[in-house]
Amino acid sequence: MQFISFARQGKNSFGAVLNQGVVDLGARLGLTDLGAALRRDGVEALKNAAVKADADFALKDIDAYRPVVADPDKILCAGLNYDEHVQETKKQRTDHPTIFMRVAASQVGHQQPILLPPESERLDYEGEIAIVIGKGGRRISEDRAFQHIAGFACYNDGSIRDWQLHTSQWGPGKNFEATGAFGPTLVTSDEIGENEVLTLETRLNGNVMQKATTDMLIFSIPTLIAYCSSFVTLAPGDVIVTGTPGGVGAKRNPPVFMKDGDVVEIEVSKLGVLSNPIRAE
Amino acid sequence: MQFISFARQGKNSFGAVLNQGVVDLGARLGLTDLGAALRRDGVEALKNAAVKADADFALKDIDAYRPVVADPDKILCAGLNYDEHVQETKKQRTDHPTIFMRVAASQVGHQQPILLPPESERLDYEGEIAIVIGKGGRRISEDRAFQHIAGFACYNDGSIRDWQLHTSQWGPGKNFEATGAFGPTLVTSDEIGENEVLTLETRLNGNVMQKATTDMLIFSIPTLIAYCSSFVTLAPGDVIVTGTPGGVGAKRNPPVFMKDGDVVEIEVSKLGVLSNPIRAE
Repeated sequence: MQFISFARQGKNSFGAVLNQGVVDLGARLGLTDLGAALRRDGVEALKNAAVKADADFALKDIDAYRPVVADPDKILCAGLNYDEHVQETKKQRTDHPTIFMRVAASQVGHQQPILLPPESERLDYEGEIAIVIGKGGRRISEDRAFQHIAGFACYNDGSIRDWQLHTSQWGPGKNFEATGAFGPTLVTSDEIGENEVLTLETRLNGNVMQKATTDMLIFSIPTLIAYCSSFVTLAPGDVIVTGTPGGVGAKRNPPVFMKDGDVVEIEVSKLGVLSNPIRAE
Repeated sequence: MQFISFARQGKNSFGAVLNQGVVDLGARLGLTDLGAALRRDGVEALKNAAVKADADFALKDIDAYRPVVADPDKILCAGLNYDEHVQETKKQRTDHPTIFMRVAASQVGHQQPILLPPESERLDYEGEIAIVIGKGGRRISEDRAFQHIAGFACYNDGSIRDWQLHTSQWGPGKNFEATGAFGPTLVTSDEIGENEVLTLETRLNGNVMQKATTDMLIFSIPTLIAYCSSFVTLAPGDVIVTGTPGGVGAKRNPPVFMKDGDVVEIEVSKLGVLSNPIRAE
């Protein structure tokens, strides 16, 4: 099943996409955000509510996509998780995952503009795969990790490179508002096999910039879940972004940064295409 | 005025402390968290509601202190913001503030145990001053920054040092549950002069471990507000933690880490004493 978060007729909501129609779960459940619904009701209840219902309107009738989970309690991002990216940044592999955080306000939905702020000219893409937690927990073992996943989505961990490198800590460059894209939909984990290899591709104005498969991840998705849940209780709706492959714009020769009018796409097998225009703020 | 967040008779609430009595603002406003009240009603409305009311019970009748803001949208922490701490960690001053993030679940209130997790034996204190945002905003100028502060509190940015240094990014070591203490109360900014120099002291089992004044901050509080609000909109209830002075346990010879049964106190002039026992989880 696929869940979307959207705006329609001036309201935020979320629902399930079935045959190009939308079951408006937000209206039915009295909630506006998918994260709140995952925390309150759980992913299985949402699936059950959707399969019993008829579509309320056509997918084309939404006004805008919102980030798949617009209100996560936590967004934990892995850095340096593909060898080609470790090498292009002249770093070394580490014994543990490199984890930094994004805030919810740094996200945008599918087709919404990613903003190039006036503070910088160094807006870069990072094509990634995000997982959304369905079942919370602390100290989750790797062998049980897959059962804690609600689903998967494309993510563009958009980065303001100069601000990312102001100091040793990357947060400022990873948290400019409306720089991280998340969508188009959440594809539930029952549609993705455990350990299934997904293919990831980033395109800028149609040119392939990054290409990788998830068997190239240095720290696997179960390892990321186990590591993060060592220190913090993962809650339903929490997002773990799994890292970007080689080919980022900043490390190209000459460097490539995104500018007003560009279009960036992240395509992942089974998860669809996340497409965003770039707009100078 | 001083605000506290507390648990009493199985419920979470918050209120104002007046003459050792508590005005239960949470019960009056139908909310459980101070952050939600700051976002919905604003700090001035909370102050006005408190001054018109009589105390509902004595301060000694609360069951537990909660983190001053238990549900902030964001907790932005400055690292390396006192020269003595920059030097003891063998780092260099940077041109911009070093900012990392904590999540709400990593916090505890005054007198609540700070937990030493089984994953580590390297739990360290970091005495700091936290500010809480009262008036939100983006791209706040330094000269207007003070007007955006609701108030001040003591903070212990407790750190699991080995996990902090797993990779270049400090997040995992800064986000173990119940390692960051925040309290005892929020002292509103009208009780602290703009540019007033506050004195900070950290004591471990009564021994002074850190001592500094806020005029020693490398990046001042207005600078931190201006920098953070460059990339993200600050919301009421957001917390900015301003950094720790020299004298952390990890950099002592021999190193000092906190263990079960220890008591750590952070005292700041005008803000009171934040005291927490250490308990092995």
